[in-house]
Amino acid sequence: MKYCYGVDVGGTTVKMGLFDETGNILEKWEIVTDTSNEGQAILPDIAASILEKKECRHLKKEEILGIGVGVPAPVTEEGIVRGSANLGWKYKEVKGELSRQTGLEVAVGNDANVAALGEMWKGGGAGEKNMVMVTLGTGVGGGIIIEGKMLVGQHGAGGELGHVCVNYEEKDHCGCGNQGCLEQYASATGIVRLARKKLETDSRDTLLKKETVTAKAVFDAVKAGDKLALEVAEEFGRYLGYCLANMAVLVDPAVFVIGGGVSKAGEVLLPYIQNPYKERAFFANKDVRFVLATLGNDAGICGAAKMILDAVQG
Amino acid sequence: MKYCYGVDVGGTTVKMGLFDETGNILEKWEIVTDTSNEGQAILPDIAASILEKKECRHLKKEEILGIGVGVPAPVTEEGIVRGSANLGWKYKEVKGELSRQTGLEVAVGNDANVAALGEMWKGGGAGEKNMVMVTLGTGVGGGIIIEGKMLVGQHGAGGELGHVCVNYEEKDHCGCGNQGCLEQYASATGIVRLARKKLETDSRDTLLKKETVTAKAVFDAVKAGDKLALEVAEEFGRYLGYCLANMAVLVDPAVFVIGGGVSKAGEVLLPYIQNPYKERAFFANKDVRFVLATLGNDAGICGAAKMILDAVQG
Repeated sequence: MKYCYGVDVGGTTVKMGLFDETGNILEKWEIVTDTSNEGQAILPDIAASILEKKECRHLKKEEILGIGVGVPAPVTEEGIVRGSANLGWKYKEVKGELSRQTGLEVAVGNDANVAALGEMWKGGGAGEKNMVMVTLGTGVGGGIIIEGKMLVGQHGAGGELGHVCVNYEEKDHCGCGNQGCLEQYASATGIVRLARKKLETDSRDTLLKKETVTAKAVFDAVKAGDKLALEVAEEFGRYLGYCLANMAVLVDPAVFVIGGGVSKAGEVLLPYIQNPYKERAFFANKDVRFVLATLGNDAGICGAAKMILDAVQG
Repeated sequence: MKYCYGVDVGGTTVKMGLFDETGNILEKWEIVTDTSNEGQAILPDIAASILEKKECRHLKKEEILGIGVGVPAPVTEEGIVRGSANLGWKYKEVKGELSRQTGLEVAVGNDANVAALGEMWKGGGAGEKNMVMVTLGTGVGGGIIIEGKMLVGQHGAGGELGHVCVNYEEKDHCGCGNQGCLEQYASATGIVRLARKKLETDSRDTLLKKETVTAKAVFDAVKAGDKLALEVAEEFGRYLGYCLANMAVLVDPAVFVIGGGVSKAGEVLLPYIQNPYKERAFFANKDVRFVLATLGNDAGICGAAKMILDAVQG
């Protein structure tokens, strides 16, 4: 049996997993992300943890196929990052550096793309090779999988669907500097923004007036039959569903996998996205399935493991 | 030296080319597309023409690497078409059938995707491997090239950018049944539609009142400094440029190649697309280049040849 490591580098912790070559997770662990000093210790810390685990388990070098790494930044095909605000990195040759520090094969990808690969391998998209993952968290991220491979793009910025413009009339600015980005309507913070705007001008009684407005509170209220919350969910879903219809006509996926914190609302979420999607989808794309992500926080390490397995096994 | 055929199947003629393995075109010819009887004669006619050319030139079977074919329909990875209005085809196993009829390797793709591959190989996108081709003809077609490969998609419908919705307020219907498709604003017929709408309500003197309105007449008038035509060009370019900005954030190309009949207007066209693009592009995609297609009607046979060379040479 051979083995590989899957590594998911976040701004607070680095999640790590040891996998066998058939994809079973043998062990998961975390280390702290040391972002001080432009994040210079991050890769050496990862290398040390990987080598320690190798020693503990008495693994031989030739038994280890390599290390897959997801990082919160655009990554080129050559494994180079030109800056990551979350990690403090400037220009960094992630693949080259980690490979030298461990003596192992390394593959590097953007964390959202890598998580999408994980969901295709063992999660909501299992069995498909053309897939789009939509991560509805604090922001909106995404990953596009074509013929089983991540769409990386020229600048490593493929699949950034949070920054598709969905409303040219928007006056508020997105974090990216543009106006009307999907993220302003479909992220957890975007949903709160939609709810607050409605509460400002709407005098109806609603569960949302009784507590702090969060995305979770909105979907809890939807489940309880709250009319105003339902209208917020419809507005959220219309922006997202219409956007995914435009995306489908370009990349033609078999399935949309919906993940991230907002997706914890569960199956209740899907019709709000799928109905406006169907209303606007090109005829060839009407039957695309919508499913929830299933791997949660493990999507990153799973996708990272799959990425290195694909790289070394071809 | 080895050889291959590039075939571009259109609704009126089938364009064919014989290439050497380094990509030189040795000969080009055309046959008529016989769309009678559900287009049943089309593939046998192509096979006969290919075998005749092989005979004339005394080529041995082992010298021929194969045949690449572009067809006006979605095509699956397996070379299957589920219907083509232009050719009269219903379900057709194009790859299997043509391969049996010729005894040669066959690769099949959608004509717009194949033309994009041609422009990447020897045309406006030469030297790049991440590219989007935009074909502004009677309709708007497109092809997405990622890492040198066509984005085919689950239903063979990848890159159908003419049917991205760019205006949710549109009342007129697109040929596809939806409303607000890019094709309604950026095709030759779309440009005429924009010009006619403006002429209905605008009393200014304009060159466009003096002749039949065509896309060519609009851009000729732009070159002559006609104010009203210039506003039509701006409107066309805003729809297209904004749409390409949304596309770039998903597929992250190095270059947009603009082709089709409308592109015959020449370099004058590009700023009308590029300026609104820059205004709306995500920061990572601001520097994407815009160029004109250079292969004209040869893009299809060139891309078809490249497709079969890639398929057999890996």
